Amino acid sequence: MKATMLYGPRDVRFEERPDPQILKPTDAIVRIAATCVCGSDLWPYRGIQPIAEPMPMGHEYCGIVEEVGSGVRGVKPGWFVIGSFFASDNTCAVCNYGYQSSCEQKEFVGGAQAPLLRVPLADGTLVAVPLKPAADGLADLLALSDVMGTGWFGAAAAQVQPGSTVAVVGDGAVGLLAVLSARQMGAERIIAMSRHPSRQRLAQAFGATDIVQERGDEGVARIQDMTSGLGVDCAIECVGTSESMWQAIHATRVGGHVGYVGVPHGVQLEGEELFYEHVHLHGGPAPVRHYLPHLIGLTLENKIHPGQVFDLSLPLAEVAEGYCAMDERRAIKTLLMP
Amino acid sequence: MKATMLYGPRDVRFEERPDPQILKPTDAIVRIAATCVCGSDLWPYRGIQPIAEPMPMGHEYCGIVEEVGSGVRGVKPGWFVIGSFFASDNTCAVCNYGYQSSCEQKEFVGGAQAPLLRVPLADGTLVAVPLKPAADGLADLLALSDVMGTGWFGAAAAQVQPGSTVAVVGDGAVGLLAVLSARQMGAERIIAMSRHPSRQRLAQAFGATDIVQERGDEGVARIQDMTSGLGVDCAIECVGTSESMWQAIHATRVGGHVGYVGVPHGVQLEGEELFYEHVHLHGGPAPVRHYLPHLIGLTLENKIHPGQVFDLSLPLAEVAEGYCAMDERRAIKTLLMP
Repeated sequence: MKATMLYGPRDVRFEERPDPQILKPTDAIVRIAATCVCGSDLWPYRGIQPIAEPMPMGHEYCGIVEEVGSGVRGVKPGWFVIGSFFASDNTCAVCNYGYQSSCEQKEFVGGAQAPLLRVPLADGTLVAVPLKPAADGLADLLALSDVMGTGWFGAAAAQVQPGSTVAVVGDGAVGLLAVLSARQMGAERIIAMSRHPSRQRLAQAFGATDIVQERGDEGVARIQDMTSGLGVDCAIECVGTSESMWQAIHATRVGGHVGYVGVPHGVQLEGEELFYEHVHLHGGPAPVRHYLPHLIGLTLENKIHPGQVFDLSLPLAEVAEGYCAMDERRAIKTLLMP
Repeated sequence: MKATMLYGPRDVRFEERPDPQILKPTDAIVRIAATCVCGSDLWPYRGIQPIAEPMPMGHEYCGIVEEVGSGVRGVKPGWFVIGSFFASDNTCAVCNYGYQSSCEQKEFVGGAQAPLLRVPLADGTLVAVPLKPAADGLADLLALSDVMGTGWFGAAAAQVQPGSTVAVVGDGAVGLLAVLSARQMGAERIIAMSRHPSRQRLAQAFGATDIVQERGDEGVARIQDMTSGLGVDCAIECVGTSESMWQAIHATRVGGHVGYVGVPHGVQLEGEELFYEHVHLHGGPAPVRHYLPHLIGLTLENKIHPGQVFDLSLPLAEVAEGYCAMDERRAIKTLLMP
């Protein structure tokens, strides 16, 4: 098959690779119906996260089960499934706490920007979609594989409740879907921090009530102004820098909650400053598996359309352009069709 | 009056100072019945927290109201009262969230190691004790002014619930009272991290079920061993160093809660390491005022005896020895009687 490899900064190649094989009895092979490029793929693409050797890319996927290992019981060839970027057994104590992305057996699922993908721990990882999706529903389902579940976890970690006032830091796909999640959870006021008109429009379509263009201290000051000087009940951090973390923390009221899902790059939290902020912090890699059944349900019931974050669709063979368009911020998120 | 001043490292003087006066209509003057030395007083005493000029010391107090300003309505001369180290109006939005220690009008109350103390915002800060305390009940009530409320907030921030498994990092007065708090909140297993026999005994008297002597990575490994490799549901951090914060974080299970109340000195949290720990963090200066009515009730009903943390009692005039004994770890906490 031909699949996507990253050789170094901005060097994405779509090249011949061996077909994936069942390596363990708990594996499945999935024929990819749709895949995409993640904001987090841009860290190694830009060279900010160095790579030691050429790396198979892609960790978001949905498709038809092609083959299962001898130990797989709950997933059958021919089923349409969605999985997450961390394979999980979904039975250990950590999974039972609802943190499948920290599963005791967790394994990163890489190489999804390809026609075929090996998924470990298939029984615990893959969730079947009960209806065969129409072509125009694929984008919504694919979004559940990472960005929708990540935005949802961010909002859950920020304890968004009916009536909450929420700020979302970051206007990438995860930030935009955090807005959608907060709306679903009943937030009354949702402030999207964004300076890009196309992303602002999508944030508003997803339920943002206010837009703040300013960043850093200025952005925090604007939010204080909008909240009687107190700050928001909940902030959702979807970037992963020190600046964005502090923007979220300082925008939050005393006793409020910060949910953080941006993969951290160089984030440092100074303990004394944090101490006097009196906020709650929770976050980490989203346990997407935990939320998949609920989010598949909302999608099939037409209550959410997270696939709207895909504003560029390309044949998989043009994956390099998909990265380039996101790197140059010409696209929010690129859908790739094998 | 004669009162306690810190001039520099290990230079505590009990010297003539002007009597405090009502400066604002919302002030009260309290005649101190008992006061004490706090673990946090040792930071400037040891020179780790430098001071620019001689500083009146002490922030824990209970006693009889001597005089009130013209605007004080809820507190009368002759009443026995307890207050906290941050004066608070107890009416602003932040106080209503339960965070009186971040009150919009908050003011630090210093100079309590003296016969008389000016307390700002008396209506919001002082809580009356409905019974006139017997001499042997004074220590319990005094402990509510800071260390008991701080340990309680640590346990509340760590979300201790009936049945929880809890680790307490730090065996000072706050750590010991965090053990007591966790017991009151129904924790099933309470692991006190302590290497001092007298403190271990008191931790056990307060409800600790296990003692771990090891610190740092070794201490964490011991706790993992005791919890099927998962970690505790709740950790309470009562020291304020990077080592103790990470000890608490690493000892906590995925999805568990860390409550931190140790005043931070040089604490740095690396974002990436925190991200993959998947814990909840909450803490800060304890809103003691919020818990005072409940804790006064528990004390008067003889359900808790937090005054047991005082293992040295001295006349106020011997305050310098009170600091020295705590600095040299000859005493857990020094009670001072004017």
